Amino acid sequence: MLCLKSDSKIEWVENALENLDQILVDHAHCERKAATFALSMTTRYPEKVSMVSKMIEIALEELEHFQLVHNYIVEKGIEFTKDSGNFFVQNLHTLISKQVPMRFLDSLLVGALIEARSCERFSQLAKHVQSSELQKFYSDLLASEAGHYTIYTDIAREYFPKETVKQRLEELALKEAEIVDLLENTATIHG
Amino acid sequence: MLCLKSDSKIEWVENALENLDQILVDHAHCERKAATFALSMTTRYPEKVSMVSKMIEIALEELEHFQLVHNYIVEKGIEFTKDSGNFFVQNLHTLISKQVPMRFLDSLLVGALIEARSCERFSQLAKHVQSSELQKFYSDLLASEAGHYTIYTDIAREYFPKETVKQRLEELALKEAEIVDLLENTATIHG
Repeated sequence: MLCLKSDSKIEWVENALENLDQILVDHAHCERKAATFALSMTTRYPEKVSMVSKMIEIALEELEHFQLVHNYIVEKGIEFTKDSGNFFVQNLHTLISKQVPMRFLDSLLVGALIEARSCERFSQLAKHVQSSELQKFYSDLLASEAGHYTIYTDIAREYFPKETVKQRLEELALKEAEIVDLLENTATIHG
Repeated sequence: MLCLKSDSKIEWVENALENLDQILVDHAHCERKAATFALSMTTRYPEKVSMVSKMIEIALEELEHFQLVHNYIVEKGIEFTKDSGNFFVQNLHTLISKQVPMRFLDSLLVGALIEARSCERFSQLAKHVQSSELQKFYSDLLASEAGHYTIYTDIAREYFPKETVKQRLEELALKEAEIVDLLENTATIHG
C-alpha cells in the first residue's frame, strides 16, 4: 500500500480486534501527535511558505480526527488513558539525517511513511472489524491518511529533485518494513 | 479587562503600531503555541473527560487563527520568521504549583490569564490601528480570546470550589500585572 514494503502481520490484526478499546485510545493519541508533528515543521522551517500552509491544513485535519476519536471513546464509555508512547514512530525518527538539507527531506518522508502505515493499519481494521459503524469510521480515516501521505511526498518533490525523493523514499520504506517486522505486537495503531 | 489588574502601557501600543509586521509574525506563533498548550492539557489529564473535549475545541480554534494570521502574512508579503520566544508566558508558567491538585487549577488559570492578556492587547490594536481591515481582524479575534478565557475559568469552577478559583485567580492576576509591568516593551503580542 502506497510506498510500503510490507503488510501488517495477521497477528497484529487479531490482537487489535481483541483489544479495540485500547486501539481507540492509542489512535486518539496518534492523531494528536500527528498534528503536533505537522506543527513542529512550521516552527523549524517557517520560511518555506507553501509547506507551512499545508502543514497547518494537515494539523487541523488531524485535530478534527482527534476530536472524532475522542468523542467516540466518550460515547462508548471507554476510559481515555495516558499515551503509552510509540516505539515505531520513535524508531522512524532516528532515521532522520542530522545534516541540512537532508534533515528536511527525511522529516517529510518519515511523516509520509507514518501516514502510509496508519493508512495500511486502518485498512486492515476496516476489512476485519465486525461493527459496521467502525468499518465506516476506519474507511473514512484511511482515505484521509492517504491524502496526507500524498501531501508530504508532494512537498518533498516541490523542494527536492524527483529522483532524490524517489531514492530516499525507497531507502526509508525498506527500513520502515524492518522496524515493523521487529515490533512486539502490542494493541496500538503502530504496535 | 476580564480579570486583569492593569492595562498595557501606551508605549507598547506605539511600538506595536510601528512594527506591525513583527507583531503579526509573533501573533501567528502565539496562536500555534496556544493550541499546543491546550493539547498538552489533554495528555496530562486525559481522564478529565469534559476538560479534554473543551481543550480540543480550543486547540482547533487556535489553529484556525494560526491559519488566518499565516494567510494574512503571506498575502501581504511579510516574511514569516522563527519564533522569538515569549518571556511573558514563560514567566507565568513558573507560577504554576508543582503540587497535585493545585497544578491542574494553576494550569487552567494561567491559560485563562494568557487569553485575557491577548484579548486586552488585541483590543488596544483594534482601537489604535489605522487599517480598517486590521481593526476588524483584531476585533474578531479578541472576542474569541475572551471566549477562551471563559472556557478556562469555567473548567476551573467545574473541578474546584468557586471560592478557591476566585482567590487563586486574584493572586495570579496580581502576579501577572507585575510581570507585565516589568516587560522590556518588545514588538510582540505579549512583549
